[in-house]
Amino acid sequence: MSNGKFIVVEGLEGAGKTTAIRNVIETLKAQGISDIETTREPGGTPLAEQMRALVKEGHPDEPLTDMAELLLLYAARIQLVDNVIKPALAKGAYVVGDRHDMSSQAYQGGGRGFDQDLMQNLRDTVLGDFRPDFTLYLDLDPEIGLQRAKARGELDRIEKMKLDFFHRTRARYLELAESDDSVVIIDASQDIDSVSADIRKALENWLNHAG
Amino acid sequence: MSNGKFIVVEGLEGAGKTTAIRNVIETLKAQGISDIETTREPGGTPLAEQMRALVKEGHPDEPLTDMAELLLLYAARIQLVDNVIKPALAKGAYVVGDRHDMSSQAYQGGGRGFDQDLMQNLRDTVLGDFRPDFTLYLDLDPEIGLQRAKARGELDRIEKMKLDFFHRTRARYLELAESDDSVVIIDASQDIDSVSADIRKALENWLNHAG
Repeated sequence: MSNGKFIVVEGLEGAGKTTAIRNVIETLKAQGISDIETTREPGGTPLAEQMRALVKEGHPDEPLTDMAELLLLYAARIQLVDNVIKPALAKGAYVVGDRHDMSSQAYQGGGRGFDQDLMQNLRDTVLGDFRPDFTLYLDLDPEIGLQRAKARGELDRIEKMKLDFFHRTRARYLELAESDDSVVIIDASQDIDSVSADIRKALENWLNHAG
Repeated sequence: MSNGKFIVVEGLEGAGKTTAIRNVIETLKAQGISDIETTREPGGTPLAEQMRALVKEGHPDEPLTDMAELLLLYAARIQLVDNVIKPALAKGAYVVGDRHDMSSQAYQGGGRGFDQDLMQNLRDTVLGDFRPDFTLYLDLDPEIGLQRAKARGELDRIEKMKLDFFHRTRARYLELAESDDSVVIIDASQDIDSVSADIRKALENWLNHAG
């Protein structure tokens, strides 16, 4: 049914996802793959971007509850999956995603502390068995990541969370990555050239074997 | 913990919810109850109203998927429950709601055809065991209701659905009402004075026995 592939780049703020996505696209092109689309989550469609704004900005007069945040993230995700990712895969494109479901499992499940069964049930209810074909998880100590994110400018509602939150998020990311064969962990604390080389190597290896 | 009561008015478009809510408030006041708050769903808080707008208006360039609609409705609901309804009940107020969860069970479950288990799981996941204390369901043939709604002006995205959708929604409303002791069915096809008298009678009966 679908000939394309869905490749996702995951990681904490400041882990280097933007550069990694550039590396992924260059590597795909070097392998002769030209039909490439990029997405970002939450967002990536007109309606999903409006949901993203609610999550990122909240409201000055009203707290966004953790549960509403979680539901908005999944509402945005299914808009993107149904209206953008699945149609692109069906016509054979390689879709490169800046975040996908693993972010919710790590941030909302690990960081916010939502029960793992709840998180998996919600994912299965909303997405069915739709999953990325390949994921690169950029692993980094949250203290380093947040310093990098801060240096880029203003922090949003999520980035202002306490360091503890990001440690819990990273721990869940690592748990998920270690238990899933379709995820490769990249050491994002290395210098930029080494990170790029590791990404290229991991992606080429996957393309040659499964992709 | 909570001394207040949550009373909900439910029914299809054009069933007479606005008048019914006025009847409810008058009846409560006549019984010496003065601490009364009203809510509407979806909406009723700054963030929930933004979610309502996404559901009601959609987007000209992108279909809102049924699943995203469902998730947005629950995101709006938990904002309202956590930030408005529960605090009001905790201080002893009577909260009169223009729609609540029964609307989702009927419109999304019955109308859109979402699986009943999915609907009940989502409700339990989001709301826990929070339920209205008393519900008045205004039952009306959808053809009559839609004629009334049309006479009021422009129809929104939901009101433009085919008649079939509203027949399925009504059928689920009736199923739910008949299996739940906290719901009273009001025959909304009667003249307005008879409907008002039935609402007053049902509410007084409940207040004297359980309320």
